[in-house]
Amino acid sequence: MPKSAFSEPVLTVAEIEKLLDEVFPQLHHGGRTIMVEQVAPMTARLRLIAHERHLRPGGTVSGPAMFTLADVGIWVAIFSHMGQEALAAVTTNLNINFLRKPPHGDVIVECRLLKLGKRLAVGEATLFADGADAPVAHAVGTYSIPAAKHKVS
Amino acid sequence: MPKSAFSEPVLTVAEIEKLLDEVFPQLHHGGRTIMVEQVAPMTARLRLIAHERHLRPGGTVSGPAMFTLADVGIWVAIFSHMGQEALAAVTTNLNINFLRKPPHGDVIVECRLLKLGKRLAVGEATLFADGADAPVAHAVGTYSIPAAKHKVS
Amino acid sequence: MPKSAFSEPVLTVAEIEKLLDEVFPQLHHGGRTIMVEQVAPMTARLRLIAHERHLRPGGTVSGPAMFTLADVGIWVAIFSHMGQEALAAVTTNLNINFLRKPPHGDVIVECRLLKLGKRLAVGEATLFADGADAPVAHAVGTYSIPAAKHKVS
Amino acid sequence: MPKSAFSEPVLTVAEIEKLLDEVFPQLHHGGRTIMVEQVAPMTARLRLIAHERHLRPGGTVSGPAMFTLADVGIWVAIFSHMGQEALAAVTTNLNINFLRKPPHGDVIVECRLLKLGKRLAVGEATLFADGADAPVAHAVGTYSIPAAKHKVS
Repeated sequence: MPKSAFSEPVLTVAEIEKLLDEVFPQLHHGGRTIMVEQVAPMTARLRLIAHERHLRPGGTVSGPAMFTLADVGIWVAIFSHMGQEALAAVTTNLNINFLRKPPHGDVIVECRLLKLGKRLAVGEATLFADGADAPVAHAVGTYSIPAAKHKVS
Repeated sequence: MPKSAFSEPVLTVAEIEKLLDEVFPQLHHGGRTIMVEQVAPMTARLRLIAHERHLRPGGTVSGPAMFTLADVGIWVAIFSHMGQEALAAVTTNLNINFLRKPPHGDVIVECRLLKLGKRLAVGEATLFADGADAPVAHAVGTYSIPAAKHKVS
Repeated sequence: MPKSAFSEPVLTVAEIEKLLDEVFPQLHHGGRTIMVEQVAPMTARLRLIAHERHLRPGGTVSGPAMFTLADVGIWVAIFSHMGQEALAAVTTNLNINFLRKPPHGDVIVECRLLKLGKRLAVGEATLFADGADAPVAHAVGTYSIPAAKHKVS
Repeated sequence: MPKSAFSEPVLTVAEIEKLLDEVFPQLHHGGRTIMVEQVAPMTARLRLIAHERHLRPGGTVSGPAMFTLADVGIWVAIFSHMGQEALAAVTTNLNINFLRKPPHGDVIVECRLLKLGKRLAVGEATLFADGADAPVAHAVGTYSIPAAKHKVS
């Protein structure tokens, strides 16, 4: 990505977590299970702490739990670079490939931003079992960026 | 679709609901909220009964709840036509477009099968607010059909 | 779809063909092979006339030719309903599933509009061999609608 | 990816180019415009040499030309790691996001393999204008791997 106003994060992990608590408390309904681990230029890494409510028979993480992790991960990557105005971004498209039998334990998502435009932002998400090299899922998502008047705060 | 062994449902709604209870009880964790309403040649219709755990702030149905409804709906359409052997089908790809602000009440999914092959099945899902004409979301999913030895029962 | 300014076509097939000739002459480079057959409320149907340059070894229609047909079909459906201002719409996402061995002869695409918004339009395309019931491919595409000042004429 | 039989290329660039000439001569119909530049563990890089037949008005590379480059790139990455048996792999799904106005000159595609399974292989493709950092398009594709009896040679 070329240097631009959006090429580096403008929020810290602590600021992101605080915003998530304020604007999206239901993410943590039933216990805090999604944690932001790192933001860096054009990337973000989050962790899903395996919890009974995310599991399928056999103890593996469910498809909807992986969908949610990818979707939240890309959204966090977007607003951490565009600023809290972009908290109001909404998912318009998400394409997910399930690649391998999902893990029994935590899932890590590594997100990479592909485009941060005035109207649309696009990012990809690769999901791994904690400590493994082979991805369990991969997603690409598009988000509509609301006009400036839609500011969250 | 041409006439084939798979061009009509081989399970009734009651048989499908019974199988779901047996093989996927966690679908109903927290209360029965997804109901199969109809299966017909190459189609299936399901209903998501709006429940507090599916809602976002403002009371609209969440993205992950719509993802789950589309995914379950296409899977039900597949195994209701291919037989209970296909209960073991697993999602390999799902592409979802969120089209409009989701409803506060029930969501209906109309599923249409596009391909029922030996190795892969593909279907699409259109989601509506109950009673409305304009879709709130649309998904296309691909499912890997396990070899015959993977029979569920 | 609810009745709205965009729920019916505002251009005839003849007007659409004339616009295509004016703004997209390279579509017909090497011979006229894509023809608009019908527009109707929220739908459009086009035909790809099989031509040597679209074929793969064995004489079947190529993947890129089917991609082009789906993409052009949804775009035609959009601007035939939104008016020629929407000729400037650009594809932002296209997801295509190849379902069966493609035909040796003509391919028909049936397009259905899912959303006609101020900023984004979404449609789906089902491709058939001429005269067959089982689809050979299925696509869903998203298009960015430029602001009004981007008028084509 | 974990070490496996498929974690490194088993064909050189020269061997790949020779196979492409033999099994897919129509790729070069009208002049050689797609060249394999490099294969490395789990990746491949190809170049589309800008040619009049790939261009849209204004001189930018067309959507179908970028679709073809992404599709061929992922397919090359797959069979260069799985061996020439996998030349018979066929695209079952391709999801492409167009991110920026495409370039006037050459386009580079960097492909990364996400899964090389017995039945399905999945890869992603990021497209750049030659010399630029910001991607112009991004695609993810799934390929069906034929059973061993379908050997090409």
